[in-house]
Amino acid sequence: MARVFNFSAGPATLPEAVLQQAAAEMLDWNGSGQSVMEMSHRGKEYMAIHAQAEADLRELMGIPANYKVLFLQGGATLQFSMIPMNLMRGKSGADYVNTGEWAKKAIKEAKPFGQVNVVASAEDANFSYAPAQSGWKLDPNAAYVHYTANETIGGVEFHWVPETGDVPLVCDMSSNILSKSVDVSKYGLIYAGAQKNIGPAGLTIVIVRDDLIGQAQPKPITMLDYKTHADNDSMYNTPPTYSIYIAGLVFQLLKKQGGLVAIEKKNIEKANLLYDFLDNSQFFKNPVKREDRSRMNIPFTLKDESFDEAFLKGAKERNMIQLKGHRSVGGMRASIYNAMPVEGVQALVAYMKEFEAKNG
Amino acid sequence: MARVFNFSAGPATLPEAVLQQAAAEMLDWNGSGQSVMEMSHRGKEYMAIHAQAEADLRELMGIPANYKVLFLQGGATLQFSMIPMNLMRGKSGADYVNTGEWAKKAIKEAKPFGQVNVVASAEDANFSYAPAQSGWKLDPNAAYVHYTANETIGGVEFHWVPETGDVPLVCDMSSNILSKSVDVSKYGLIYAGAQKNIGPAGLTIVIVRDDLIGQAQPKPITMLDYKTHADNDSMYNTPPTYSIYIAGLVFQLLKKQGGLVAIEKKNIEKANLLYDFLDNSQFFKNPVKREDRSRMNIPFTLKDESFDEAFLKGAKERNMIQLKGHRSVGGMRASIYNAMPVEGVQALVAYMKEFEAKNG
Repeated sequence: MARVFNFSAGPATLPEAVLQQAAAEMLDWNGSGQSVMEMSHRGKEYMAIHAQAEADLRELMGIPANYKVLFLQGGATLQFSMIPMNLMRGKSGADYVNTGEWAKKAIKEAKPFGQVNVVASAEDANFSYAPAQSGWKLDPNAAYVHYTANETIGGVEFHWVPETGDVPLVCDMSSNILSKSVDVSKYGLIYAGAQKNIGPAGLTIVIVRDDLIGQAQPKPITMLDYKTHADNDSMYNTPPTYSIYIAGLVFQLLKKQGGLVAIEKKNIEKANLLYDFLDNSQFFKNPVKREDRSRMNIPFTLKDESFDEAFLKGAKERNMIQLKGHRSVGGMRASIYNAMPVEGVQALVAYMKEFEAKNG
Repeated sequence: MARVFNFSAGPATLPEAVLQQAAAEMLDWNGSGQSVMEMSHRGKEYMAIHAQAEADLRELMGIPANYKVLFLQGGATLQFSMIPMNLMRGKSGADYVNTGEWAKKAIKEAKPFGQVNVVASAEDANFSYAPAQSGWKLDPNAAYVHYTANETIGGVEFHWVPETGDVPLVCDMSSNILSKSVDVSKYGLIYAGAQKNIGPAGLTIVIVRDDLIGQAQPKPITMLDYKTHADNDSMYNTPPTYSIYIAGLVFQLLKKQGGLVAIEKKNIEKANLLYDFLDNSQFFKNPVKREDRSRMNIPFTLKDESFDEAFLKGAKERNMIQLKGHRSVGGMRASIYNAMPVEGVQALVAYMKEFEAKNG
């Protein structure tokens, strides 16, 4: 069958060029007579792949030399615990911003490790906006300030970077990393599960400033100490080698496409296509405050729920899948990460127009 | 270039048929228009893959219904901590058998969680044997007894199952799982990193008896509690989907090849080919006690170290790679997991004969 337009929130669509390359070299990578899956992680072929992936990510994001890049496992979900374990550093607590489902999970997992202060929350309006920093009640002695750059369920994205002075800023960028350029030096730690904008599930990327490494809580769990992985270039134990390899191919493609400034421009165009249509529709609606709308995950509802099933069925017939909204929100959700081509968004908008004309 | 014979200890060679299938369907799995890497883990396609992998593993190993199969991340190394966190259950300590590098790592990581009693050790003979159970000083009140079924560095394997009565038996089977049939009901918990006999790195399999789940230490780290994963069929967060998929293809192939009894027979033949040659050689030598020799990892030394470089060079010219021994042991090591064809072992023995005739 033809390739579908896959609007999944993650794992998500990957660049076709990357998949084609992965297929072509599956039995013999670069004349080595092996698949990347079969390579010893201590062998020179894989070690070169690993180093190249890190170098390309550093170049793409402009990661300063005093930050380590770690290739870990366990998803952003394991980071919800590793961050307080490593960054609490004997301080009494940390500040968290509550913007929805993912922020709430981060907050819950931090609680066993210290006082968690929810310094702002958008719960009052069903998580439809990013709380302005003027209302945040920051503690100058907090171990760190944590926020979620993009909420995949609510479709809310920070289009600005919080200012936290000397308190390290920690950011869950799982769903918008590499979608735009960011100033890494403003952050103490950035983390992201790979399965949206980076590569296959099973890889988690952590970018952490040197001075925040090596202060993990006393009870040692070697695998949950950033120092373990920083000291061993993410090779303390076997890393998820194939996932890192595919991520590395994605990094190279993004560089070829002009880097994150060019990618951001394309992402704005793609998102605007859909939002402009939504704002002019009498049938479809997006609930998020205009300036906080996500460019990655766009939730929308139909005139009423009774149309949902027919909409999804028609989408599938047109090779568009994974448009059903998260069970906690209902309606629809279009995830349009980097690898979703503009043609996918155009096809979706054309279908929505057609559906509205028929049912509106 | 031609496919090599890859003797890596892990990540290791995978069945060619599996790699060919993975390549063929990289852009379109089974008419879905997506790669398995791109599938939502909550979508029906991936959920079917996930369930099939579990069902096939259960069938292959004869896993009883009162055991959960968990697909986790972080490698056996993270299990070194998760096991005491989950299985200490308020008891004062656990018993460990020290058979070499991997056992020592498990012992080290368990110490923060309780008293670790090393009930037997082969350190007195440079880890060249598996200590007979008659010498183990087991504590009847121990939380569990832990042993390493196969030491990849020393090349020592347990060809028998310890008897621990009512004390749960815990086993690191990373390097010999699926290489032979085992009676799972004798174990409380079996764990294995995938990257040797199962599939791509980044997946860890845990098989755990129901009554040992749900008693994790009070300080909650959700991701490190087996109950989290047992309650969510390994879908609490995004699992390493592609690794699970490839592992599932390996399971299906093993079933087609006659299951673990047939695989074990083949593995005995492969190992005997190499050991018989070693035992008759005046030039090559294996240091392990005959009845404890590993069928998976076969370390050997040459007459003296000065031959090592030439041996490795000649091997590479003959398309045989990753034969260099672990840095802590020196010499050579041939890892011959399930997916290493008998032709690879034959080629190695033929080359060793030739090398001995020339240099012996």
